[in-house]
Amino acid sequence: MYSFNESREIINNTISKINFADDPAELFDPIKYTLSTGGKRLRPALVLMSCELFSGKIDEAIMPALGIEMFHNFTLLHDDIMDKSPIRRNKPTIHKKWNENIAILSGDVMSILSYKYITKCNKEILPSVIDLFNQTAIMVCKGQQYDMNFETLQTVTVDEYLNMIELKTSVLIAASIKLGAILGGANQVDINHMYNFGCNLGMAFQIQDDLLDVYGDLKVFGKKPGGDIIANKKTYLLVKALEIASSEQKVRIYNQLKKKSFDTDKKINAILSVYNELNIKDISIALIKEYLSKSKSDLEKVSSENYKKEQLKELFEILLNRNK
Amino acid sequence: MYSFNESREIINNTISKINFADDPAELFDPIKYTLSTGGKRLRPALVLMSCELFSGKIDEAIMPALGIEMFHNFTLLHDDIMDKSPIRRNKPTIHKKWNENIAILSGDVMSILSYKYITKCNKEILPSVIDLFNQTAIMVCKGQQYDMNFETLQTVTVDEYLNMIELKTSVLIAASIKLGAILGGANQVDINHMYNFGCNLGMAFQIQDDLLDVYGDLKVFGKKPGGDIIANKKTYLLVKALEIASSEQKVRIYNQLKKKSFDTDKKINAILSVYNELNIKDISIALIKEYLSKSKSDLEKVSSENYKKEQLKELFEILLNRNK
Repeated sequence: MYSFNESREIINNTISKINFADDPAELFDPIKYTLSTGGKRLRPALVLMSCELFSGKIDEAIMPALGIEMFHNFTLLHDDIMDKSPIRRNKPTIHKKWNENIAILSGDVMSILSYKYITKCNKEILPSVIDLFNQTAIMVCKGQQYDMNFETLQTVTVDEYLNMIELKTSVLIAASIKLGAILGGANQVDINHMYNFGCNLGMAFQIQDDLLDVYGDLKVFGKKPGGDIIANKKTYLLVKALEIASSEQKVRIYNQLKKKSFDTDKKINAILSVYNELNIKDISIALIKEYLSKSKSDLEKVSSENYKKEQLKELFEILLNRNK
Repeated sequence: MYSFNESREIINNTISKINFADDPAELFDPIKYTLSTGGKRLRPALVLMSCELFSGKIDEAIMPALGIEMFHNFTLLHDDIMDKSPIRRNKPTIHKKWNENIAILSGDVMSILSYKYITKCNKEILPSVIDLFNQTAIMVCKGQQYDMNFETLQTVTVDEYLNMIELKTSVLIAASIKLGAILGGANQVDINHMYNFGCNLGMAFQIQDDLLDVYGDLKVFGKKPGGDIIANKKTYLLVKALEIASSEQKVRIYNQLKKKSFDTDKKINAILSVYNELNIKDISIALIKEYLSKSKSDLEKVSSENYKKEQLKELFEILLNRNK
């Protein structure tokens, strides 16, 4: 079984060999650029690992895995336009480096290309692969819309937040794992367990992401902490804090949220002090562990022999230790 | 055989019955709105008519036809953002009525939904349906990019222009007809003839569109003439005029193109007088007839009995007489 890092390497090699030598350059250069800026390659690696768990090989999963990575990068590209983000992976975003029109249209092409690669699979499983991908893609867009809607809402409940990240993040991770299982010839019961394994893993992954934005180590995580706080982003930490805060603490949070101009460090520290009073870090870690525990238990239910699951189990460690 | 108008009616009825009762409203209301604003329903009607030509029925073509219409409307929605068009079909465009983010994201969902509907077909033909659609969708995006590139070019050759409209307009019309033929169980030779029939029909259709913008009857065409002239759009008329114009006539055209502020009627009349001197109307009509003649000849080659082709042949008349 290939490890997570080996699987990512296979994806990176495959991406480096795609031939996009195509006109017009304005359309394909941004796609090459987007794919070359890296990223964790988590989702396509999961497609390969999940496929290998059942079939013992990954050859037929490489193109569909690439399709999943293409789709993920398409969503980031369009999200960056919508969020007006100037930087992604330490590099200028497409709408900044080129322009917004090129970002819209090259994103559209990436969305189409993701279908092209994902459907490079055995004819027999094609209908279920397409159904899975259609449903997933729509859910991801719904998640993005809810996330944008949250920006203008004063209050978002924890349930609303969890529903949003399930749509925006978890279902694509779950679908990657399910896709691998389908490609690997798993039975329907195992396919469902794998989906749930991925969905819970995805929830843990996103909440960990929210946590690292505030409590992450700059050297390891690569981002200056507090970006979400500065942007008033409705993260798990903020939503949970507002749920359990006293009236006085709520006032302190909302005072920061409504400021039009502010010293970023002061704003981060003001919000952070409420988080610390409320033990938000521990509460978040507890929820991450809860999702990881569910995820582990889903993986246990899969009928494959235990030793084959080792590489996938390592993901739990990798995820929990992303900050170290 | 259903006529063109009957086929359009079937599509309109189907669209009116789709249940988009889905959250979040910000994502699905724009899709309902877009589909409810009408349009000619040319492409989905062609899917039905082409399918019926071979199979004698249309039931299995209705959902894929809807997918084609969904895709066409998705491209219009995103094109309208890129072109900053405030009005489409006499109604505010999505980015004007809602906002640009909602227009981007609801367009993305329409693109995904088009795959959902197009792939609602027999498992046996699914791979060829997907291949056709993937290739077509990418060509349409390329066409849009070339069209945008043309805006900043001083000179576009007639060949470059024809290549652009083939990608942006013709291939989707051709693909609609080919899709119908595949769904109707046509053999490969007929499928190819039908594709060529559609491609040539599409070329005629687009050049006719360019012509009607200048020489169309306001009462029938529903648009005030000269919109393309005002917008400096590189139409067949402009590209051809610049190809055959004398130095003096070129100067008169470029003088108009470079004006930042102008009286619209004066600008239209100035360009129109060059067109008239150069006989651009007749030259355009001759090219339209040339494409229609090729298109007719492609349809003749299709092995179906002649009487079955009558409804499709009527399209040539409908197209040529759009101005009356």
